[in-house]
Order: sequence, then C-alpha cells, then structure tokens
Amino acid sequence: MRHKLAFIGFGIVGQGLAEILRDKKEALRQQEGFEPLIVGIADLMKGSIYHPDGLDIDTILQTLEKTGDLENYPSTTGLSTSWDSFKMIRESNADTIIEVSYTDVQTGQPAIDHCRAAFKSGKNVVMTNKGPVALAYNELSKIADDYGVQWGFEGTVMSGTPALRMPVTSLAGNRITEIRGIFNGTTNFILTKMEEEGVPYEEALNEAQKLGYAEADPTSDVEGYDARYKIVILANHVMHIPLTVEEVSCKGITDITLKDIEEAKGEGKRWKLLAKLKNEGGRVLASVAPEKVQVTDPLASINGATNAITYECDLLGPVTLSGAGAGKVETGFSLLIDLINIHREKKLVNI
Amino acid sequence: MRHKLAFIGFGIVGQGLAEILRDKKEALRQQEGFEPLIVGIADLMKGSIYHPDGLDIDTILQTLEKTGDLENYPSTTGLSTSWDSFKMIRESNADTIIEVSYTDVQTGQPAIDHCRAAFKSGKNVVMTNKGPVALAYNELSKIADDYGVQWGFEGTVMSGTPALRMPVTSLAGNRITEIRGIFNGTTNFILTKMEEEGVPYEEALNEAQKLGYAEADPTSDVEGYDARYKIVILANHVMHIPLTVEEVSCKGITDITLKDIEEAKGEGKRWKLLAKLKNEGGRVLASVAPEKVQVTDPLASINGATNAITYECDLLGPVTLSGAGAGKVETGFSLLIDLINIHREKKLVNI
Repeated sequence: MRHKLAFIGFGIVGQGLAEILRDKKEALRQQEGFEPLIVGIADLMKGSIYHPDGLDIDTILQTLEKTGDLENYPSTTGLSTSWDSFKMIRESNADTIIEVSYTDVQTGQPAIDHCRAAFKSGKNVVMTNKGPVALAYNELSKIADDYGVQWGFEGTVMSGTPALRMPVTSLAGNRITEIRGIFNGTTNFILTKMEEEGVPYEEALNEAQKLGYAEADPTSDVEGYDARYKIVILANHVMHIPLTVEEVSCKGITDITLKDIEEAKGEGKRWKLLAKLKNEGGRVLASVAPEKVQVTDPLASINGATNAITYECDLLGPVTLSGAGAGKVETGFSLLIDLINIHREKKLVNI
Repeated sequence: MRHKLAFIGFGIVGQGLAEILRDKKEALRQQEGFEPLIVGIADLMKGSIYHPDGLDIDTILQTLEKTGDLENYPSTTGLSTSWDSFKMIRESNADTIIEVSYTDVQTGQPAIDHCRAAFKSGKNVVMTNKGPVALAYNELSKIADDYGVQWGFEGTVMSGTPALRMPVTSLAGNRITEIRGIFNGTTNFILTKMEEEGVPYEEALNEAQKLGYAEADPTSDVEGYDARYKIVILANHVMHIPLTVEEVSCKGITDITLKDIEEAKGEGKRWKLLAKLKNEGGRVLASVAPEKVQVTDPLASINGATNAITYECDLLGPVTLSGAGAGKVETGFSLLIDLINIHREKKLVNI
C-alpha cells in the first residue's frame, strides 16, 4: 500500500523532504516497506497541483526550478491545479499532510487550522512549524486522538535530532525531573565564536548571518524566543506539563560581552544560552537565559551550531543527546522519521 | 491484561528490575497501562518458585533477604518450587522471560539455550547478557521472528541508555556509516583519573576496584573485550552487518602511561578507549583501541564511568548519545524499557 502525501507549503524544508524521498526510494522500500507517493502540493506562492494517482518527484522539482510555478507541471488526465490548502487537506486522497506552510509563529496560523482540518478529515499530519505545538498542544493532540490519526512534529525542537521521540520511546518508565538544553544553533554559534576567536557580539552575529545561521532580523534567536517555544513543546510532549509560552522567563544573549566570556573562562566555565525546565514537587520552573556552565558539564562542550539536550531521569540519571538543530536535509529528515514511525505503526495495526 | 514475567536468574540486575516494578507499579499502570505480574523465578543458587496467579514482589525480596532462599516463600495453594530454568521457560504461563542468568560470556551459555527454549515456547525474552546477542544474533533473531515473539536486549550495550533503541526508532531512514563510542565505564574512569589526578594506571585501577567499577579480575574491561562484544552487537542490530567477535581488532589500555597522557594533553587531546565500526563501501572496519581524541570531539568530554556513542548519519550528520553504562537501577531500567516497548506493541496489535 502506497502512503499518500500532500504538502501544504513547499519551501526549503518541503523540497528537502521531497529530495530525500526521491533519493532514498529504494532503501525505504527495502528496509521499511515504506512507499510514499506525493499526490498533492499547495503552496501560496508556488501554486498548487494534485493528482490522485501521484506526481513524479523529479518532474515536480524540475518544473519548480525551471518555471517557479508548480502549475506548469505537465498536464495529464486527472491532474488538478489551483486547489487551496484547505481543499487539498479536505478533498485530496492523501493519508498524511506534510504541514510546512509559511506560518506566523506568534499565532501559529495558518498551520493550526491546517492541523484541525486534516485531523477532522481523518488525515495524519507531520510538521516542522513550532507554533501549533507550542500554542495548541492539548487541543490538537485531543482532536488527533479523537479521529484516530497521528501527529508528528519531531522537527520542531532539534530538527531531525530526536529530542522528542527518543525520550518517549526509550526513556519511558523514568520520571524526567529536569530538562536542560541548547536549542538554538545561531546563539550557540555566536557564543562559541566570541569565546574561541575573541570577536565581539556584533561581529559574531554578522558572521552567523553571512553563513545563513542567523536571519536578517535575528530577534527570535538572540532574544531567546525560539528556544522558549522549544522548551514549551518539550514540557507538553515529554514532561506532560501544560506549560504556556508566557510562563517561561526569557533573556537573550545580546548583553553578553567579551569581558563576560573572559571572566567565565577564568572560572573554568563557558557561557551557553540554556533553556531549562524543572518540576520540583509540582512547582514548574521554566526559563531561557544565558548561563555560565562548568566545562565538565556535557552541555559545555557543545560548539557552534550544534544543539543538545540533557534529560534528568529518576532511574537512569542524566542522558544527553546532541546533534544538528537545523538544515534543509536535517529538517527534511525530521519529517521522514515521523512518516516512518506512522508507517511502522500502521503495519503493526494491520498485522 | 497482566503481562506475566518469569525471571531466569535473580542477581543484582534482576532484583533491580523487581524493585522498579514494585516502586513504579502505579505510574506504569497509569501512564502505560502496563501491569506486570511476576509468576516465577528460577535461580541456580537462590532456588526456584512459581505461581501461575503471581507472586508478591515485597514477599519475594524479603524472603530472599531474610533466608537467602526463594523457596522459603510462604507456601500457598498452587505454589511450585524447584523448577529448573528450562521447566520455568517451557511450562510457566509467563508471557516474557527476563533472562538474567549467570552466563559465560565466552560461550553465551546457558543464556543462548534459554532464548531458544523461550522463543520456541512462544515467549518473549528481555535480557542483559551480552553473549547471546554478540554470538548468536542471526540465529536467535530468526527464531524469535519465526515464532512471532519479541527479543529485547537494550541493556547489553550502555545499560539503560538507549544505544540500540534510539537509532532503530529515531534515526531510521539514515544510512549510518560509522559508529564510535566509549562503551566501557571502568576504563574511562581509569583514564579520566589518570588525566585529572595524575595517578598511574595501577593506582587508578585500584580505585576503580574499590568503588565497584572494576572487578577483581579486570581483564575483560581493561583489555577491551567488553567493548568488543558491544561493537559486535551494534554492528548486527543497528548497522545490519553480520560481524563476529573475532573480526574486531582489540587493544586495551594497560600500556597507557602517565607520559602518554601528558603528551596528549600537550596536543590538545585526551586518551579514550574507543570502539569503532565503519562501513566503507562494503568494507567493514571494526576495532577497539585507545586513541587520542581532539578535545573538541563530543567523546572527549565524556568523563568517569559515563558511556557515549556517536552515530554518523548520511542525512542527519553526527548524533551523540551519552549516559550511564552500568548500575543496578540503570540496568534494571534497560529491562523495563524493553518490557514497555513489547507492551506498547502488543496494545497496538490488539487495537
């Protein structure tokens, strides 16, 4: 049985997944029995195409590269164009919606409405948009459950590095009492650069922008807002705490000076932008702030754009996971691993 | 439905699991719907008890503590004693066998025969004995598959730290091209001690023995044999390479001197006993040997008895996991997470 996919949005991450599905076609079939079929794409800027029998990935990517408009996909019987995102979600024959639309992280829209519509149409959703998970976790989880569909969002915390799936599949049975992490590659790159090369904040930020790690407006990263969303997602999904964004105290790295960095070095410490979440007998402490970390702490050695997370477990003690926190292929993979796990579960249920 | 368990062997790790099952009873029921019931224990030295309706964990542990003999468990209708391990495996009503017998790591026996008997009786096995997995992976996997039962052995590599389950559940879809790890806490403790305190090898080893990290005969740890078994398990289970123990070159840490340690420091490096496995276009390189690691390498900052593993993934790049590699509760937990995953799968199949 083919697993039919419709993309809502088709930017860098969506195209990254499409390329992986093309390049890994044979391996996914052999190793997982997973045979994805893209039936539709609806993108506000790039147009919309749908064919219930499937579209060819190479033709999609070439059409887009050559003409910038998906609707120039070669016309065939059964091909529809110009469906909007909600028509694609509700009326396509997709099993799973790949939600990678351009979404306002403040409101989580239109991704939240896309999820609601998909679940109510009996379709799974996999996504990388943080907003819906940070802002509407309980509501959306409940709708997905009610309609018996799956909701995957591994990519919302550390791109494909399994910050969400690892604890859920592999640390279950522990009470996780505390989570500490470096969830923002941009700020970690800047701090590492300041420390290792002695360049001031502004220069390190410029370099991060040149390399594509930081956006033209770096506010969301350097003020800690990005990391704050991620700690909210971890609280809800991993620690089952209904934390909201407003409840997380948040301080960025813009005040950190070279003098601070040097002082920390003298104390055997390194500055890191740490996101922390602690459950102390029912009292929840959640914060994002720069902190001087002992060099012996596993998080101290996380350099450059790498992300890392430490889970304090009552049975197992501290467990630390580190890896990529961004990137086209890495985030594309986060969607793939969500799809693979939906597929595996479906196989089990259908035994 | 209760998940019925029989222990083969009841040493430190088995008792560790029993204590966890007792202390976490309510949490496991609420969070997982998992309700384990110990129906039998067969231990060569501590005796054997079986009751098809279940045994009380507190009574088991108290009987053992007070009398040293499980067969002093209070007599009740339906209680059997003196069953040997194979009778327990074949004739008990257990769903899953907890295989924690005292086993010769050279031959993998009697654990290999215990697995064969359990699978052929339609029973799942969870275990911490490395021998059967390192020596008979293909045969035992096939029997388990043929009989439609599960085989869990998370605890054989890094105790409860999910070195096996994490890549299988969360990195699938990647081709893992290389694995590097610190899989032996004893030797890492010794090397850390030599480096941080400038004590010679023999003194560091004595300290490890005093603290219970090293055995009276430390050969298996310090010569790298323990790590060699673990790299074989990873090769077979995670990288699907039918590697055998004999194919892994192996060198221990007994030759490392304080002079070596100091030299490495001068080069910005640290000595680590690294287990490595690489698949270079079909050519497999597998080794255990001390190596000077750059301080910037995530494995360089792994101190003391902690274990760590780096997976090089074609899509996601390097992913590193670190945590406990030994301990009564930590290894007891490795059995629990195998049980929880068997239970979750059973729930799905029975939807």
